[in-house]
Amino acid sequence: MSSAQNPIIEVIAFDADDTLWHNESLFTVTQAKFKQLLAGYHSDEWIEAKLNETEHRNIQHFGYGIKGFTLSMIETAIELTEGRISGAEIQQIIEYAKFMLHAPVELLDGVAETISALAGQYRLMLITKGDLFDQESKIARSGLGDHFSHLEIVSEKNTDVYRAVMARHQLDPQRFLMVGNSIKSDILPVIEAGGRAVHIPYHTTWVHEQVSDYDAASFYEIGDIRQLPGLLEEMRERG
Amino acid sequence: MSSAQNPIIEVIAFDADDTLWHNESLFTVTQAKFKQLLAGYHSDEWIEAKLNETEHRNIQHFGYGIKGFTLSMIETAIELTEGRISGAEIQQIIEYAKFMLHAPVELLDGVAETISALAGQYRLMLITKGDLFDQESKIARSGLGDHFSHLEIVSEKNTDVYRAVMARHQLDPQRFLMVGNSIKSDILPVIEAGGRAVHIPYHTTWVHEQVSDYDAASFYEIGDIRQLPGLLEEMRERG
Repeated sequence: MSSAQNPIIEVIAFDADDTLWHNESLFTVTQAKFKQLLAGYHSDEWIEAKLNETEHRNIQHFGYGIKGFTLSMIETAIELTEGRISGAEIQQIIEYAKFMLHAPVELLDGVAETISALAGQYRLMLITKGDLFDQESKIARSGLGDHFSHLEIVSEKNTDVYRAVMARHQLDPQRFLMVGNSIKSDILPVIEAGGRAVHIPYHTTWVHEQVSDYDAASFYEIGDIRQLPGLLEEMRERG
Repeated sequence: MSSAQNPIIEVIAFDADDTLWHNESLFTVTQAKFKQLLAGYHSDEWIEAKLNETEHRNIQHFGYGIKGFTLSMIETAIELTEGRISGAEIQQIIEYAKFMLHAPVELLDGVAETISALAGQYRLMLITKGDLFDQESKIARSGLGDHFSHLEIVSEKNTDVYRAVMARHQLDPQRFLMVGNSIKSDILPVIEAGGRAVHIPYHTTWVHEQVSDYDAASFYEIGDIRQLPGLLEEMRERG
């Protein structure tokens, strides 16, 4: 079906966090609470800088996701208060984690109708990074799960991982299109693996996802997922 | 190849933790350190009971794995000390987590040679539960990864999950054999999904994996993975 309709693209893979639903905003809200909690000890800027530093150092231990973020918040709080933080305050941080893990999944504007429309024309995949348990829960709560023929939850998004996903599903990289908000995770490694990519910027980007040195001509960029069907149409016409 | 050799079993799937490598012992050692840390406040028995209770309550939030276990240890420590635990002691608990996440992967006796021998005769899969990041790291460190044609890291092991894995890989349940140490996770749901299963008990079973009500005649049991090739031989002869 899809090959008859679009000789260029057969499979469209979507990132999830900040591409299909809001995620970074939940971390931003939690960081604001965390800064409030430690307001008696340090300035907002210093707390944020130290938290980023701890997270960066701990990715090798904890990977991506809310549980690792929470352990990094606790570690930062202990460090910044020189151990004076109370048990009740640390329990507060654990409660932030539970809140985040159960927060409603809010789809970005236009996602529900665009995904539903594209699912009739293309094979859709979801490729997301983070905690397995949390990501599965969000996919279920999003109500979008049935539109995707494959769900891939990966611990890291690099060229080797994309190559492995393509090989596992016997996908031709030339006919594979990845759509996501992170140039570092969703765009550059896909191009490197021989695929195509569409960048849809989200209003904030996590500091660990920021990159500056890349060739913007090697991928597409749109402002909103609702422009994706039009872009696919153009790609087909240009052949 | 495999179908010519064994008309009964085509795919053998292995659980990983406490089936291929030691895992529960790492948690036991950490629990001992945790009890030592809180020895000034409560008895060992009480600490263990409260930790089990917190873990059980938190599985709905955190799923399985070291990071969730660590958050549960911190929560238990705060509760049991009525908030008097110090920042330095909580940092100690976070260090237990980092130690666990990087502890050497110790294969059980006989695993390396048995897996290597079976890989030449059957399609082997690995189906394990827990943190994606941690499980991938352990598979890599085990040195066994190349023997498995598929690695499945799942957030829960129930009948639906096994059915989905079998469907995804187009496996005939009748020719699928699961090998693992947990009757609750590796054996009963596989039988329910129409597959076959071999139980290899590990010397300790995590309290949340304990079950008592089941039909022991519905699956095989061996004492050691080195008996598995002989059992497969018997199954083939009996047809």
